[in-house]
Amino acid sequence: MKTAKYVNFLLAAIVMASSISTLYAQTPTANAITPAQLNFMPVPASVQIQTGRLPITGSFSVAVKNYADDRLRAGIARMLKRLAGRTVLTLPADLVTDEGAATLVVQCGRAGEIIPSLNENESYTLEVNDKHARLTAPTVVGALRALETFLQLLQGDRDGFYLPAIKIQDQPRFPWRGLLIDVARHYEPMEVLKRNLDAMAAVKLNVFHWHLSEDQGFRVESKKFPKLTMLGSDGLFYTQDQVREIIAYARDRGIRVMPEFDIPGHSTSWLVAYPELGSAPGPYKIERGAGIFEPALDPTREQTYKFLDTFLGEMAALFPDEYMHIGGDENEGKQWDRNPQIQAFMKEKGIKDNHGLQAYFNQRVLKILQKHHKKMIGWDEILHPDLPKDAVIQSWRGPASLAEAAKEGYNGILSAGYYIDLVFPAAEHYRADPIPLNTSLTAEQAKHILGGEATMWGEWVSPETIDSRIWPRTAAIAERLWSPRNVTDVEDMYRRLSIINRQLEELGLTHEKNYGMMLRRLAASDDTAPLRTLASIIEPVKEYRRYQQRPQTMLSPLTGLVDAARPDSETARRFNSTVDAFLADAPRFALYRSELEGILEEWRNASRRLGPMIDKSPALQEARPLANDLSAIAEAGFEAMSYLSSGDAPTTDWRQAQLAKLDEATKPKAALEFVVVNSVRKLVIAAGELPQLRLMTAVEWNKRVMTLANPPAAPAMQ
Amino acid sequence: MKTAKYVNFLLAAIVMASSISTLYAQTPTANAITPAQLNFMPVPASVQIQTGRLPITGSFSVAVKNYADDRLRAGIARMLKRLAGRTVLTLPADLVTDEGAATLVVQCGRAGEIIPSLNENESYTLEVNDKHARLTAPTVVGALRALETFLQLLQGDRDGFYLPAIKIQDQPRFPWRGLLIDVARHYEPMEVLKRNLDAMAAVKLNVFHWHLSEDQGFRVESKKFPKLTMLGSDGLFYTQDQVREIIAYARDRGIRVMPEFDIPGHSTSWLVAYPELGSAPGPYKIERGAGIFEPALDPTREQTYKFLDTFLGEMAALFPDEYMHIGGDENEGKQWDRNPQIQAFMKEKGIKDNHGLQAYFNQRVLKILQKHHKKMIGWDEILHPDLPKDAVIQSWRGPASLAEAAKEGYNGILSAGYYIDLVFPAAEHYRADPIPLNTSLTAEQAKHILGGEATMWGEWVSPETIDSRIWPRTAAIAERLWSPRNVTDVEDMYRRLSIINRQLEELGLTHEKNYGMMLRRLAASDDTAPLRTLASIIEPVKEYRRYQQRPQTMLSPLTGLVDAARPDSETARRFNSTVDAFLADAPRFALYRSELEGILEEWRNASRRLGPMIDKSPALQEARPLANDLSAIAEAGFEAMSYLSSGDAPTTDWRQAQLAKLDEATKPKAALEFVVVNSVRKLVIAAGELPQLRLMTAVEWNKRVMTLANPPAAPAMQ
Repeated sequence: MKTAKYVNFLLAAIVMASSISTLYAQTPTANAITPAQLNFMPVPASVQIQTGRLPITGSFSVAVKNYADDRLRAGIARMLKRLAGRTVLTLPADLVTDEGAATLVVQCGRAGEIIPSLNENESYTLEVNDKHARLTAPTVVGALRALETFLQLLQGDRDGFYLPAIKIQDQPRFPWRGLLIDVARHYEPMEVLKRNLDAMAAVKLNVFHWHLSEDQGFRVESKKFPKLTMLGSDGLFYTQDQVREIIAYARDRGIRVMPEFDIPGHSTSWLVAYPELGSAPGPYKIERGAGIFEPALDPTREQTYKFLDTFLGEMAALFPDEYMHIGGDENEGKQWDRNPQIQAFMKEKGIKDNHGLQAYFNQRVLKILQKHHKKMIGWDEILHPDLPKDAVIQSWRGPASLAEAAKEGYNGILSAGYYIDLVFPAAEHYRADPIPLNTSLTAEQAKHILGGEATMWGEWVSPETIDSRIWPRTAAIAERLWSPRNVTDVEDMYRRLSIINRQLEELGLTHEKNYGMMLRRLAASDDTAPLRTLASIIEPVKEYRRYQQRPQTMLSPLTGLVDAARPDSETARRFNSTVDAFLADAPRFALYRSELEGILEEWRNASRRLGPMIDKSPALQEARPLANDLSAIAEAGFEAMSYLSSGDAPTTDWRQAQLAKLDEATKPKAALEFVVVNSVRKLVIAAGELPQLRLMTAVEWNKRVMTLANPPAAPAMQ
Repeated sequence: MKTAKYVNFLLAAIVMASSISTLYAQTPTANAITPAQLNFMPVPASVQIQTGRLPITGSFSVAVKNYADDRLRAGIARMLKRLAGRTVLTLPADLVTDEGAATLVVQCGRAGEIIPSLNENESYTLEVNDKHARLTAPTVVGALRALETFLQLLQGDRDGFYLPAIKIQDQPRFPWRGLLIDVARHYEPMEVLKRNLDAMAAVKLNVFHWHLSEDQGFRVESKKFPKLTMLGSDGLFYTQDQVREIIAYARDRGIRVMPEFDIPGHSTSWLVAYPELGSAPGPYKIERGAGIFEPALDPTREQTYKFLDTFLGEMAALFPDEYMHIGGDENEGKQWDRNPQIQAFMKEKGIKDNHGLQAYFNQRVLKILQKHHKKMIGWDEILHPDLPKDAVIQSWRGPASLAEAAKEGYNGILSAGYYIDLVFPAAEHYRADPIPLNTSLTAEQAKHILGGEATMWGEWVSPETIDSRIWPRTAAIAERLWSPRNVTDVEDMYRRLSIINRQLEELGLTHEKNYGMMLRRLAASDDTAPLRTLASIIEPVKEYRRYQQRPQTMLSPLTGLVDAARPDSETARRFNSTVDAFLADAPRFALYRSELEGILEEWRNASRRLGPMIDKSPALQEARPLANDLSAIAEAGFEAMSYLSSGDAPTTDWRQAQLAKLDEATKPKAALEFVVVNSVRKLVIAAGELPQLRLMTAVEWNKRVMTLANPPAAPAMQ
């Protein structure tokens, strides 16, 4: 859960200003495509736009050359299915043997790693001309990456579907590009994992970090210790066959599967079954709350290590990945402090504090992992002078802490900045870089930074909502980890993200389609228009405030408005930039006026219609104050625009009254917050500043308005 | 596929006029709920509305009394999860032990059948008063049915969620209420089957008829004959473990699982692996087309029966249901006619024709099934004097043919009228009754009619679209098979269907939510508004015309507009009844005028915006003529309404020109047809009849318009 320095880090993140278009070496010709028409995500390392296009018709065909295996053929079949789905063309299912006749030639060198690993070569080249496309890759995994790029190239117009002529040479910036899914706090069914693995492959992520145990649940079958799931899972766990199924599914897509068994803390669910491993007598119950809890394994007893040797040995055989994640985070050691035997042990061994005791524990666990031929990975807390150099640090603290470890020779991956459960917009994550421009690392030291991982912590996600919490924002993180460092244009990222977002739907993801379903259930009606208007400009509160403001347990339904509303509102983003453009048109205030008035009108209508809707549907009760705020926001916006249009300045009283209403609307309700208030505040302040407009240039005036409208009290991330 | 008499039967179906409200014995009090506020589907056998309401709050609790087992507890847990989902209340997960303190008391007599069977007692009573609800059922299955009714009772208003006070006594009219899913022509993943089993349980269906083999695929693992799936399934099949998982899942919901292995025809996929069983030498290839194909098992060789004995024996052990379906349909015997050995065999045995030869085959198969303790069920064609009386006839021919069989003492189930793949509206299916009011059967004979089955044939459904082809229409069939015969009010059925439709979404069904996704993919855009307008008033062509008009193979994508558009357009239904109401308001034509103009305006705008949209997205090319028709329909409607409003009669030329345009718009394009044309035709004809209006009463005039507007050439089912 690793929260402490997250926000500070985000605020300090360097915003890089270079534009995406600098990446494209373009041959300037009349009918060539422009970079703004290319919809890659992640952007490839090198792209050369050519003249011409390759038509995609029902006679599209694929040939393989040199190396081919089942994994490659299955990857091609999946690509063909998606291509057919988009184009509604019946494509030949069989590969052709005549390379000359094929539309796409896939030329592969070798299989790649038998067990997906950090050493995988994922590079490829892709050339498209008028006649055909040719994909070259040293390994099948590189070819799989290229097939995703191939699909992202598909375009259509009046003349039909086509690929633009292009030359792409591509390889990842970092070899470790992961997504953590916490299936412990809320269990996620197999199909959720599978569709998310498909989505990971679509944006070239390559590590599925499977967070399998927590205070709230133990999710993997152990044949050695069946009580772990019998008593610690509510019956919701993966059998070993299912684990193998996921590993095979991931491998088919060139994705590693790294399990995490979080110890010594975060282990209540283990202790439900085996209280004798705990640092307090028990009995233990599966934790239903959210937060940091006391239960921890007892690091002083040999029994604990015997158990871990057997259990981790079993898991080491089940999971082929070379790394095993042992968590290691957020153990505050309260149980240790209270246990006289543990205190005596520390005294006897000369262990000074709980950090020292955990280091002792980690050393013991390390030896167990080494015995079972696994390298250790853990959160920041595992860093300790005794840690061997082949361990990996996963940093929730930030790139500075990661750089410190790198200087000591430790490999590390960044997760600070990629905590997607905190509900920040994609732009914030996009700005987080494992090796920022201002890094203090030498080129040699920087090699220790292996990449990063987005973390989908599971407190407030269900199978219905998890996709919308992961996607599309994680695609922006995937780009950060794959694409060259200078790919940093936020606006272009959002343009492409919205296209990729739709393409992700073809993989069965529910991030878009469950939105309407959840609103229908909340409204108990098919007519959800006003609710949809409201939901489109509110977001769940950021960081860990949801639980503070709207306490729930792990057994609570995740079907409320806060669950239906989604992070990173595109509607709000568009409204906010429209307001800026409108204000920049001082003193005319004509640009986008009718558009803004239309939006405010929609808000006003929605706020009126929401009341009766809430009366009928008690599940929406908590939306009532939001409906009231919506009304206030719409009215403030209307009145401000009316002043601006007429050029008559409002009274100071009016200004104060409106700002007070907007301050009220800024306060989260039902763990939801409006993400358009600041723009309406700008309108109100601008109206109040009309007299100044006469005394300065429009540019000066606009600058002043923008400054006034961004008081330090406003939420940091809006 | 059984089509021949389907349409005739539908046309002949008796429309019963008695209203649903006759079922409700109502105590007339001031604040009691009315039948129009009750949203059952299927309607229970007996309902008494009481005064008062039972509030549903976060302290809702359940106690079980008398018998309880894991199946009942799991059923209660599922009900609680859905209740929590709808109400956004955190409900206690554990059962309470104090019956007096419980909101809902579940009082069960016994487990019910160990293997779900025809003998299951599914009855229950449910009483709700101000203080608590009490559910009584002789078996756990009855209790599961009652829990669905319980959820359908949930209502909400300003004061919160509640159940109306009520007394319900319920049991099914028929013991066999099935849904056939053809997973052979297109494979359906496990989660598709599971969510459809959940939906079946929600509307009290109790037989999952699993159509597992076809010319186009063999979908179940045989350990005795592994080549069946190795060569005949494209790798898409259910392992025996998965079959057991589905059977357990179904049993948990009180649903039988009856497998069908269609023989001797429909067997190409068997012969791919075992050509020696065929009536022609082979080799065979998996069939990719749709239709009736020649391959058939050779009924003259002992080898065939040896194979079937081993195979059906293996399947008999895998599937615990007492019935095994052997198909038996649509074998035209062309391979038999051409095989000299088979002809010689027939001569030798004195078998006159192919029907006789198939009867011989069935007799041999029957003995095999008897040996493995299974009763035989097959389509109409298996009916033959030698058939034992414990066999069941599944009728695609209709209730008359079923009645004939019943008179001979055969049990039967009706599927004619329930062919949901033919894309007819729910109302048509609703009118089909296994024992029509005018039945020639005695009460004793009628007992042989066990019920019916909806049939989801798989030619044109994918995992993305199948839910929308099954639901919500199948809920109307479920009501026909469960509720008393006099529950026949179509309008009230549609009212309740739209509510149940939404509730079905909470089970993970995609029938609503994939619609938007498919339109987004077709438009390659998030802005699908005009396309949605078009799609909302077109339906796929009925019966088997889709394949004729838009040939495809089983390998074609099912992502076109014909796949996105859905059966039984609610938008069209509402438009059509609004037009009737508008015309009935002669000579004022004021009622609903602005509403209709608004709709026509939406169509006109959509038709204008569709052109550029289609230009951008070649996947929509085939929608271009539909966009043109939409424009013509909107213009004809506008002009007709303008004449009607002004009272000025149009010229005959105008009338003819409009009708010609509408005739063109009636012609299906891209296997899609408008289902609003007839109403616009009414408007045009009405305008043309304006001079007559002066000469007759409005009622006479309206009658004349309706007659003129329904020419015999119009599609039968609109």
